[in-house]
Amino acid sequence: MLSEDRLFPSDAKVRSRARDLYNSVKDLPIISPHGHTDPKWFAQNNAFANPAELFVTPDHYVFRMLHSQGIPLEALGVPRADGGAVEQNPRKIWRQFADNYFLFRGTPSRIWIDHALQFTFGVTERLSSKTADTIYDQISDQLSQDAFLPRALFDTFNIEAIATTESAIDDLRWHQMIRDSGWEGNVITAYRPDAVIDPHFEGFADNVAKMGEMSGEDTTTWSGYLTAHRNRRAFFKSNGATSTDHGHPTARTEDLPQQTAAALFEKALHGKCNAEEADCFRGHMLTEMARMSIDDGLVMQLHPGSFRNHSSDIFAQFGRDKGYDIPTRTDYVTALHPLLNAVGERSDLTIIMFTLDETAFARELAPLAGVYPALRLGPPWWFHDSFEGMMRFRETATETAGFYNTVGFNDDTRAFCSIPARHDVARRVDCSFLANLVETGRLNGDEAAELAHDLAYRLAKEAYRL
Amino acid sequence: MLSEDRLFPSDAKVRSRARDLYNSVKDLPIISPHGHTDPKWFAQNNAFANPAELFVTPDHYVFRMLHSQGIPLEALGVPRADGGAVEQNPRKIWRQFADNYFLFRGTPSRIWIDHALQFTFGVTERLSSKTADTIYDQISDQLSQDAFLPRALFDTFNIEAIATTESAIDDLRWHQMIRDSGWEGNVITAYRPDAVIDPHFEGFADNVAKMGEMSGEDTTTWSGYLTAHRNRRAFFKSNGATSTDHGHPTARTEDLPQQTAAALFEKALHGKCNAEEADCFRGHMLTEMARMSIDDGLVMQLHPGSFRNHSSDIFAQFGRDKGYDIPTRTDYVTALHPLLNAVGERSDLTIIMFTLDETAFARELAPLAGVYPALRLGPPWWFHDSFEGMMRFRETATETAGFYNTVGFNDDTRAFCSIPARHDVARRVDCSFLANLVETGRLNGDEAAELAHDLAYRLAKEAYRL
Amino acid sequence: MLSEDRLFPSDAKVRSRARDLYNSVKDLPIISPHGHTDPKWFAQNNAFANPAELFVTPDHYVFRMLHSQGIPLEALGVPRADGGAVEQNPRKIWRQFADNYFLFRGTPSRIWIDHALQFTFGVTERLSSKTADTIYDQISDQLSQDAFLPRALFDTFNIEAIATTESAIDDLRWHQMIRDSGWEGNVITAYRPDAVIDPHFEGFADNVAKMGEMSGEDTTTWSGYLTAHRNRRAFFKSNGATSTDHGHPTARTEDLPQQTAAALFEKALHGKCNAEEADCFRGHMLTEMARMSIDDGLVMQLHPGSFRNHSSDIFAQFGRDKGYDIPTRTDYVTALHPLLNAVGERSDLTIIMFTLDETAFARELAPLAGVYPALRLGPPWWFHDSFEGMMRFRETATETAGFYNTVGFNDDTRAFCSIPARHDVARRVDCSFLANLVETGRLNGDEAAELAHDLAYRLAKEAYRL
Repeated sequence: MLSEDRLFPSDAKVRSRARDLYNSVKDLPIISPHGHTDPKWFAQNNAFANPAELFVTPDHYVFRMLHSQGIPLEALGVPRADGGAVEQNPRKIWRQFADNYFLFRGTPSRIWIDHALQFTFGVTERLSSKTADTIYDQISDQLSQDAFLPRALFDTFNIEAIATTESAIDDLRWHQMIRDSGWEGNVITAYRPDAVIDPHFEGFADNVAKMGEMSGEDTTTWSGYLTAHRNRRAFFKSNGATSTDHGHPTARTEDLPQQTAAALFEKALHGKCNAEEADCFRGHMLTEMARMSIDDGLVMQLHPGSFRNHSSDIFAQFGRDKGYDIPTRTDYVTALHPLLNAVGERSDLTIIMFTLDETAFARELAPLAGVYPALRLGPPWWFHDSFEGMMRFRETATETAGFYNTVGFNDDTRAFCSIPARHDVARRVDCSFLANLVETGRLNGDEAAELAHDLAYRLAKEAYRL
Repeated sequence: MLSEDRLFPSDAKVRSRARDLYNSVKDLPIISPHGHTDPKWFAQNNAFANPAELFVTPDHYVFRMLHSQGIPLEALGVPRADGGAVEQNPRKIWRQFADNYFLFRGTPSRIWIDHALQFTFGVTERLSSKTADTIYDQISDQLSQDAFLPRALFDTFNIEAIATTESAIDDLRWHQMIRDSGWEGNVITAYRPDAVIDPHFEGFADNVAKMGEMSGEDTTTWSGYLTAHRNRRAFFKSNGATSTDHGHPTARTEDLPQQTAAALFEKALHGKCNAEEADCFRGHMLTEMARMSIDDGLVMQLHPGSFRNHSSDIFAQFGRDKGYDIPTRTDYVTALHPLLNAVGERSDLTIIMFTLDETAFARELAPLAGVYPALRLGPPWWFHDSFEGMMRFRETATETAGFYNTVGFNDDTRAFCSIPARHDVARRVDCSFLANLVETGRLNGDEAAELAHDLAYRLAKEAYRL
Repeated sequence: MLSEDRLFPSDAKVRSRARDLYNSVKDLPIISPHGHTDPKWFAQNNAFANPAELFVTPDHYVFRMLHSQGIPLEALGVPRADGGAVEQNPRKIWRQFADNYFLFRGTPSRIWIDHALQFTFGVTERLSSKTADTIYDQISDQLSQDAFLPRALFDTFNIEAIATTESAIDDLRWHQMIRDSGWEGNVITAYRPDAVIDPHFEGFADNVAKMGEMSGEDTTTWSGYLTAHRNRRAFFKSNGATSTDHGHPTARTEDLPQQTAAALFEKALHGKCNAEEADCFRGHMLTEMARMSIDDGLVMQLHPGSFRNHSSDIFAQFGRDKGYDIPTRTDYVTALHPLLNAVGERSDLTIIMFTLDETAFARELAPLAGVYPALRLGPPWWFHDSFEGMMRFRETATETAGFYNTVGFNDDTRAFCSIPARHDVARRVDCSFLANLVETGRLNGDEAAELAHDLAYRLAKEAYRL
């Protein structure tokens, strides 16, 4: 189904150079330093249940597109918050998907899914109403085989290291089970403290109390709260974490006097922060997290700018992560000023910035990453993790930030089978970009070869200290 | 003058595929579901007066560019608001245009005008000071011939359906005359209620009173006002309307309690709304209009984000629509939240969003249209209705919204002779985009062929319920 | 080192056309109407001291990139504000640069430096740790030769005219020395009054007093202050100035009643303007400057939108212009409204707008420049003075503003040896853009040839009245 030369430039000379570069990196192991796969898969190593569970129900890219054309989420088996009835028959869900597979024309989901169907499951025909059942049966058969269990796929996918993301108050039981199992797959965690940092997160005070319990610290005081963070970070590190991750509505940072921060924390614990105070507290905690990163060496990732749960009805009926998180215009220059003034000059600290607002690359993020030693640019994120998105990223960021203030690729996915596809797309795009630089006299061939390897493998490994 | 392969990619293989796709759609009838042609042309079917009246005086793209280089609008025959003297000699106006035709190099106007000159009027030489008179004479002669009357051109242009845009308080006399005439050209209206929705529109209260009169409703009350809208919409529907159109300064929407809305309406009628209240009322009325659309099936178009009449002097001297409407940065995620929460989940409603802020496509509009069943993306609008603008639209919107959350092309023009040219450009750009997807392994050939037809014809027809 | 076909499109036919166009303009003299070279160089005509002083220490593009990877500015010989110790050995600085030259892969600095090394100094090998010393020695030798003195390089570079930029209270002694010397190089100044216009500029009141002294006017009064500006502008004109230049944090303009302006000025003199009042005063002064430009014919340049000295530590330790000026999102439509309403319709005035926010080109600046007679678009500025930046500029501005509302190229540099490289890049990009227009049927060959010349030479000369 897929062309061997997919995503390479159409000009024959540039294409040939892109292909050569790609061939030199396509078999490199996958470094997946940030994502949302479920550690339980690797801990229990149970078979995936059926094709719909693998490709449709958990993939918000997939069900949001189907829904945009009027298909109710219930018909796709997406569970309701109230436990109400949704489609239970995976074959029916799969048929809905197959019938509407044309909707994905021109989208990255199409490439990812075709890739998984072809290279993981050996499917040879395009998914459609006509082929739906045959493909369903073929995948179903395979899922029960040993070669398709999570750990086997992990090996097949040639994953050298993968990070999952857990809440600061997660007990990391699956990670500990993986470690105890003797399996050698390198699955690590990452510290995501939004639930204990955002005063407006559901159950904030309870979450903080739980963090106190888990860390044996008195989190009713500001200093106890900070120590509890340090403890939890250490615990995450002992489960392999090399990074933290922060998903705030804006990129706002603050560097408040400790007394002011303590007073805000007190308010937050009592549920008394207004919107501005909550934003201010979140912003200050980023600077606290950065200071802890200088101490414990955890790389810091910021993922700001998503308006979460845009549809109140869908949120009420189905909960979070249902495709209704929408990017917003995001300021970085003013927002990051306090953080960068506090710690931006540290070259022993790494802060990786992501954005859902691509206009910030050329204007703000590349100029900032191109001068502050602590700052690096994360790869195109979420809706921009696509051919055009990646190409625009290189075109808008490279001239000011260079390549070496970027950190390779993140797949950032919960769709396990899409991982090889996503890294493959990233490698193809980067090799195409590099080939074009060479053919237009902006780079030499030997430099492009070195860069192809750096972008596919080395930069991610180094930036994330893996 | 025009190359047969214009606007196709330069790579031979991609060009050849683009050409094949284009050849399969170039003769499809034109669906023009939104625009500003004058229904009087088709009602009276009088000859256009002269080349200047056809190409210069009414075309704000043309006279704004000439003016930007210092040519007074008076010299181009643009009528003054005070009836003051302006150039009356169409040949002199035409010569000014021809002398400065080089200014249009690299602009869409150049392609549209060359297209009209070559294919509608058979002109074979480039317009310039040297050819000005010959071309003037040639067009003048033709305009008096039957084959160049509005209805004949309508047929020549292969227009299957065209929508004009009329104010809610227009009596639609020309549309009725067209219907009464027995001519079979499908010219329909669209409901544009800005004059009776925007508290700061000139003569708002009078306009609302007139709407009351025309509809036989008491528009001094909030409920009478809403009913009057329903009546007028029904009247527009009986004149073929399948859509409404809303041109607000921002994309703000509101979903107020009825009592609050009624109180604002009361204030508006008495000219007492401040800027914020006027904006709020406009925003709320969009949600009311959407609710009526669910009832009567009219497709809703939003055209926000233009700073109208930027030059006070030009506005005072020449009035509206003189090239001084400037796009502004426009937020959609927050602005559309109330509307989409009220009606966005309805799959029996179609809201078509336009933007003058292209940065919103990848960041906001494609993510929104890619999940809300009611939302569709209109084609590139106004300054962005161009080769580069259309290409950027496909490159930034497709990966997240797909093709099927878009609605084909709108020419949105009052320049009648530019209609075939504009649709031709859109078809060429879309076929080039599709050819590139195929040649870079992102789409199969049979899918591209189907999409070429969808984008040129089917999607517009279906989205606008024509 | 450099490919002869660098920056040309890869498609053979388009490349060949781009090359032909480029060959027709590559030897045209350089018009450098805006920049920051030091007039002292041309006045004294002393040899440049060493390669580090020429390529590293004064070039913020270079040291910011090195610093972003953790190299202290001290190690690069950047002088500290407190006179503290920094690296004094130019060879060591050069080696740091050479060791890390790979960081510049894909950046414009790489092309500029390679160009200077190859074409000015005859270097034949790529700069690296291995070649660092040889290249250092080679350049060192040359710098002491007559052919490499500033005036000789001026001739070698084929500069027809170059403008420097001086503060309104500069005595222009170097310019006068150049004039007195009898040397025929055309080095002119430009009037930059930020220090006497921005109430928050260091030493504002003293600066204004000094301007009073220099002009013999009583600058304690509003009218005396305005007259002093007129006098200084006349003095700058007598030193060749044809332009003024204004670098404000935002693009805000105002057109206040004279009494209000006078009151603000009074406040400013006494250091009593708050942020809003300072911004308002700066904004108003742009309109005053524009009115003076109508009288004295100086072309007005606006360079808004940089957040200066983002790192407080670096500012405290090293002062201004250390690579920490970061672009910000910038509004133009509302901001320029007062100015354009006051003087925008004048076709005897030229206002050249620059931006660090590229998203404004298609949305705001091209539509504004495409209608207001007084407004022109400056070339891509600062971080956007690059292959991709220039290409995006043409792609986003041309369709609405055309070519003739743009003003050719500015190198805007203090790196003297980069001037030929920068103009060469601009000519290559423009010829590539034009070649692509021709090969995709959007322009005729004869028009492209004329435009290539216009963009490389004529437009800059005419717009800046040189």
